[in-house]
Amino acid sequence: MRGPKSIEPFFYPKSVAVIGASAKAGKIGYTVFSNLKKAVKKIFPVNPKHRNVQGKKCYKNVLEIPSSIDLAVISLPAQKVPEALAQCARKKVKAAVIISAGFSEVGEKRSTQRLLNIIKRNSGTRVMGPNCVGILNNHSGIDTTFFDRARMKAPKKGSLSFISQSGALGSMILDWTSTQEFGISKFASYGNAMDVDEADLLEYLGQDAKTKVITAYLEGAKHGRKFFEIAKKISRKKPIVVLKGGKNEQTSKAAGSHTGSLAGSAAVYDAVFRQAGIIQADDMIDLFATAKLLEEEPLTKGRRVQIITNGGGFGIVAADQMLAKGLKLAKISGRTRRRLAKALPDAILSNPMDLLADADAKSYGKAISGCIADKNVDMVMVLILFSIPTLNPENLALLRKPSRKIKKPLVVVATGGPYTKKFLTRIEKAGFTTFNYPSIAAKALAETAFYAEFLRKG
Amino acid sequence: MRGPKSIEPFFYPKSVAVIGASAKAGKIGYTVFSNLKKAVKKIFPVNPKHRNVQGKKCYKNVLEIPSSIDLAVISLPAQKVPEALAQCARKKVKAAVIISAGFSEVGEKRSTQRLLNIIKRNSGTRVMGPNCVGILNNHSGIDTTFFDRARMKAPKKGSLSFISQSGALGSMILDWTSTQEFGISKFASYGNAMDVDEADLLEYLGQDAKTKVITAYLEGAKHGRKFFEIAKKISRKKPIVVLKGGKNEQTSKAAGSHTGSLAGSAAVYDAVFRQAGIIQADDMIDLFATAKLLEEEPLTKGRRVQIITNGGGFGIVAADQMLAKGLKLAKISGRTRRRLAKALPDAILSNPMDLLADADAKSYGKAISGCIADKNVDMVMVLILFSIPTLNPENLALLRKPSRKIKKPLVVVATGGPYTKKFLTRIEKAGFTTFNYPSIAAKALAETAFYAEFLRKG
Repeated sequence: MRGPKSIEPFFYPKSVAVIGASAKAGKIGYTVFSNLKKAVKKIFPVNPKHRNVQGKKCYKNVLEIPSSIDLAVISLPAQKVPEALAQCARKKVKAAVIISAGFSEVGEKRSTQRLLNIIKRNSGTRVMGPNCVGILNNHSGIDTTFFDRARMKAPKKGSLSFISQSGALGSMILDWTSTQEFGISKFASYGNAMDVDEADLLEYLGQDAKTKVITAYLEGAKHGRKFFEIAKKISRKKPIVVLKGGKNEQTSKAAGSHTGSLAGSAAVYDAVFRQAGIIQADDMIDLFATAKLLEEEPLTKGRRVQIITNGGGFGIVAADQMLAKGLKLAKISGRTRRRLAKALPDAILSNPMDLLADADAKSYGKAISGCIADKNVDMVMVLILFSIPTLNPENLALLRKPSRKIKKPLVVVATGGPYTKKFLTRIEKAGFTTFNYPSIAAKALAETAFYAEFLRKG
Repeated sequence: MRGPKSIEPFFYPKSVAVIGASAKAGKIGYTVFSNLKKAVKKIFPVNPKHRNVQGKKCYKNVLEIPSSIDLAVISLPAQKVPEALAQCARKKVKAAVIISAGFSEVGEKRSTQRLLNIIKRNSGTRVMGPNCVGILNNHSGIDTTFFDRARMKAPKKGSLSFISQSGALGSMILDWTSTQEFGISKFASYGNAMDVDEADLLEYLGQDAKTKVITAYLEGAKHGRKFFEIAKKISRKKPIVVLKGGKNEQTSKAAGSHTGSLAGSAAVYDAVFRQAGIIQADDMIDLFATAKLLEEEPLTKGRRVQIITNGGGFGIVAADQMLAKGLKLAKISGRTRRRLAKALPDAILSNPMDLLADADAKSYGKAISGCIADKNVDMVMVLILFSIPTLNPENLALLRKPSRKIKKPLVVVATGGPYTKKFLTRIEKAGFTTFNYPSIAAKALAETAFYAEFLRKG
């Protein structure tokens, strides 16, 4: 079986076997078993050395288990993996995650070839890995990742999914989301991709109702054309944000992504990704910012941004950034101008719109409502300088979002240190999408504007 | 008197008068007086309404004070400012900060013209403002800024100076530095620049022994040619990092910087700034990062960066960023390679150099020492993924800096959430220069490489 249905058991298994389950705390086989035990009732430890693991009867091998198995997680020394996988195939296990390393990534050919033969011969068992941390379904609690939960705050439940060859980069994004107002849906690190690859996962997440935004770290696509065909289809339905590692000739060598169709310069990638409607991130900072914007805000209808500020200089720096990133400065209509001139007699009603140093939550509220309702405005960026000596930051932090009848992106940006951050966090908690720097917000807004244009082109 | 000597009394006054000193807490005239009182013994409140302000005898006007005055700070309603300044001139006050607003910035012509006449007629009193927050000398405690010290953490004493037309942007940078390992030397917000302008301040800071790095937010230069001539000279002695607001035709209008020589496109600015050896920031994020790098690290001798990482993907993303910003990937010498191959038998000794997931502080230490000593390496970027499941972040946070005999920039980058930040902060406290994102560090490294090249061109 192929297609998204065959990926489902990785994320929603009803029965799980942990091959290499351990009774010794600190071992990967211990952590994985203990994490999965919390999420699945039908769970079976497999380890010939034990009769009992963490209070559960232990089996010599997967074939002995008196139940069908949806998911097997294999954490064994590399040379023992092929036999264990062969047994999974005989048992008609639907999905297997091979955590073990020591295959093609270290140049180990014999075990790699044996594994490949087993994968090719059977059509019933989908395989993720080897050399991976596997999957996390943050809604069902299915978790093969052995990330350090005791120390790292668990991510919130949400609708952002992330796929990455590298497990380490996955742990980075989970760490980051723990500070955000939204959360993670599904995560998959697929390692050497001997069977399940980025394209399979993309296709699966594309049809997954619990995934709203797909983010990915890719070094190469195992099958370039397949990946792009799938991406092109999926990106019509939901946004895909990709951070591509190895964009240049020098770095793509380090990434080991020599696979024909994907090699080339940063410019080539850019063109191909654009064609597939893929939103691009240059760095983790963009990946995070764009994912956040897509998660929290409606998609923009155009490139015209209205900036509202309480500091002239801050507004101008932001406007320069908008233009640098390919966005446009909106021009509010005569009607909006007349209304705001009455409501905010002292404000400078240009773009940036300067509410001056004595602006409070009320004047910001009026300016935001006026601008967001204007047909000449596609998005609104609100800048707040909390550190202006004469203002009352406590009052500014009381800012509330306008009614959501008008669906346009609205972001709040405040730059500074801990003083600024304290008040910006309150604004974020009140439901606003916030950023620390105009340039970061501008890049994210520009990327989503590109995506909106891609969708409109149809 | 003109030249840097005439600016000195703003930062090192031996006697101060506060014109408009107030006995009422919360008033600007109260805060300014109470802040200055802590730093200067010979301080005189001036206010015809009071006989006594904060325990000091109060004078009707500056002429009545039985002592010469180095610095007068004027915080009065706009229409009263010209007379007060005229009295300062008669008194031969060396420097006057006019905090009051309500002049050319709001189109008020009469008071502006009167002020200008007084400034032109006298040659003894240098004037800063009006419409400014004035100055902060973080070493002597001289502070006319009325920033909210009770709420905002005071910046550390250090050698970063900052000039800005806007006081608000100054408060932003002070807020930011409170989180940094280095601190602020001098800050000046010069408002409408009717007398003292950005060029005067640049010249002064250029010869100031307590200033190592000059940062500036500029919307325009009052006298473009004068500014660039001075910048060209100063930048030979110490780095100048400028964030220019209003780089584009649309935004320069908002910035009100129509002053001939400085108008134009972002590209024109870029060229002119480069010629003067000015390091450019696109946004606050660059301004902060570049200032930090210049403050904490020696200047690079070239563009070749060696990346050391414990996560392959993270390394590749960083390498892409280096190339995108115009830096080069270093190639370590055969000798270094052989030495490191013995010391770190499992590491992948390319660029990025991958120490793999089990790297510890010891292996990082060896790799850093080896690379920084290599004549083919100009700078070293160390990437640490603290969230890799199998590693011990506590151990990695024990990383110590190599001996400083070899003067090359060395930065540590770690991306993530609170878990990552906790360990990165320890690394920063151990004396490393740290950043949260490879792209931000790469931009700062590239800007300082440009500056080093400017200096070499002679």
